[in-house]
Amino acid sequence: MSLHKVIYDTDPGIDDAIALVFQALHPDIELLGITSVFGNATIDTTTDNALYLASRFAPGVPVARGAAAPLRRAVPVPAGWIHGDDGLGNVAPERPAHAVPDPRPAHRFIIDTVRAHPGEVTLLAVGPLTNLALALADDPGIAGLVREVVVMGGAFGFNGVLGNVTPAAEANIHCDPDAADIVFGAPWTLSIVGLDVTHDTVMTTEFLASIRDRAGVAGRFVWDVSRHYEAFHEQTGRRGGIYVHDYSAAAYLLAPHLYRTRSGPVRVVTGGIAAGQTIQKPLGMSAPAPDWDGRPACRACIGVDAPAVLELFDKTLCGAAA
Amino acid sequence: MSLHKVIYDTDPGIDDAIALVFQALHPDIELLGITSVFGNATIDTTTDNALYLASRFAPGVPVARGAAAPLRRAVPVPAGWIHGDDGLGNVAPERPAHAVPDPRPAHRFIIDTVRAHPGEVTLLAVGPLTNLALALADDPGIAGLVREVVVMGGAFGFNGVLGNVTPAAEANIHCDPDAADIVFGAPWTLSIVGLDVTHDTVMTTEFLASIRDRAGVAGRFVWDVSRHYEAFHEQTGRRGGIYVHDYSAAAYLLAPHLYRTRSGPVRVVTGGIAAGQTIQKPLGMSAPAPDWDGRPACRACIGVDAPAVLELFDKTLCGAAA
Repeated sequence: MSLHKVIYDTDPGIDDAIALVFQALHPDIELLGITSVFGNATIDTTTDNALYLASRFAPGVPVARGAAAPLRRAVPVPAGWIHGDDGLGNVAPERPAHAVPDPRPAHRFIIDTVRAHPGEVTLLAVGPLTNLALALADDPGIAGLVREVVVMGGAFGFNGVLGNVTPAAEANIHCDPDAADIVFGAPWTLSIVGLDVTHDTVMTTEFLASIRDRAGVAGRFVWDVSRHYEAFHEQTGRRGGIYVHDYSAAAYLLAPHLYRTRSGPVRVVTGGIAAGQTIQKPLGMSAPAPDWDGRPACRACIGVDAPAVLELFDKTLCGAAA
Repeated sequence: MSLHKVIYDTDPGIDDAIALVFQALHPDIELLGITSVFGNATIDTTTDNALYLASRFAPGVPVARGAAAPLRRAVPVPAGWIHGDDGLGNVAPERPAHAVPDPRPAHRFIIDTVRAHPGEVTLLAVGPLTNLALALADDPGIAGLVREVVVMGGAFGFNGVLGNVTPAAEANIHCDPDAADIVFGAPWTLSIVGLDVTHDTVMTTEFLASIRDRAGVAGRFVWDVSRHYEAFHEQTGRRGGIYVHDYSAAAYLLAPHLYRTRSGPVRVVTGGIAAGQTIQKPLGMSAPAPDWDGRPACRACIGVDAPAVLELFDKTLCGAAA
């Protein structure tokens, strides 16, 4: 029996795709569904990409199409220069001819699936949090029925970084700050895997080449899909490797002992120059803070054993391919 | 000849007083004046305390009374539980009978003094930045005539801390975010000494006791004034020592090599839950950020050789007392 029944909420996205391959190959993860969301590309593109990824690496896993836009603001411009015009590093994925999404919208798929497996479902959310916020709005009762929520997003400054799309905000949270503030305030067990750890977790060119040569079809795909992403990283000064943001959330789910965390309520700034920033009130802070106090504590990742996290990826891909 | 002609802009305040004693005793600092500002206590109290401190430790140095309130918001409640009802740890300072402030308001004193010593004056600002903002408003030309500005305030998250009065804001900046945003945007050489380094610079009870026993009247005063402050720190979980926020700014001025810094424009959040937060766009960040781009780079302290900073204090106080 798999240890983790997962709904993967995602906007593929290159690192989203790498994380999907990992989940599909890890024996402790049972994918109950993939829900798409706008973000790294338009909802049409991310949904097509999710269908493509499912057909190649997770056949039979349903894909439900999610939100096309944030709750209360305009759709951000897709970051083609980061993820390629096709959202997958210009590898030209073809949507499989007979694949169609689940008839339900993503948030309804989430609600139905959580209610079908009370206490068992983990939401692994690596895009804007719009689908999760819509699910909570439609059915607040699911918060108590979800086993765990793991979010890739945000930053708390532990490595001096508060954002990547602005000086204050990480891309996923910046795409829909209102949704993130709702999701971080819901009464469920939630962990945040942000730039504090993903910027310390780098797959080097050598690491990726080794995966390519040793992990069969999956390894070849991880290599191909990451070429454009690596070129983007080089443009921004990160030479010879890529951050693996979304994979880090999957790694945290399976191996939380590889991460140091800090607990406390988290709010998201929804306006002004810091819009999209995540701010935690650590549980040890005694000063009253009415905007935080009374909200549930979230766990924020603040440190990582990066070599062990990379080894987990290597073993999962290469073991499965052997 | 002293290396640094300093105007000390301050809201004494216990750590303000400790930093004043240090400056008065260090041979490389020539105090041209002390300007008071509201903050740790009301402007009446901080001005009285500045007169008291000058009379005891810096006789002849003029004191100019500064702003009673922030530029555009209500006066914050003085933090009596931190600095004592008298602002100086309840040591009951007596305002000297014949001491009176300079007839000019602080911001006018700053303008006149800077213009009298073009290119020579350092502004060491360890309270809310209202006086400096008022000086810039009255005479923007001083920005090019000041040698250097060193501010104690703010936080950039390098040790996981973004604030002490709220989860996002440090006290000095939180008192007048509008003023801080103006001061950080002016075209002068400005360095920020924030919680990233002051929370790593702790005077332990043993250190303070040693200063008390070896530094004569100054050492006795540092001990007495810090008793209430240490009790406050113990209440917040910091046992057996005190943060020396304001002294850290003076130490940075004299020994910048003891600090690691990061350069880039700094904005201050002026509204919402993050009001008072300082956010830097590091010079290496390539993403456009219109709210930051075009503003002058500030240096933010992000690391400190704390033992050396404490040794500088010890040598200065005990050397002078020997």
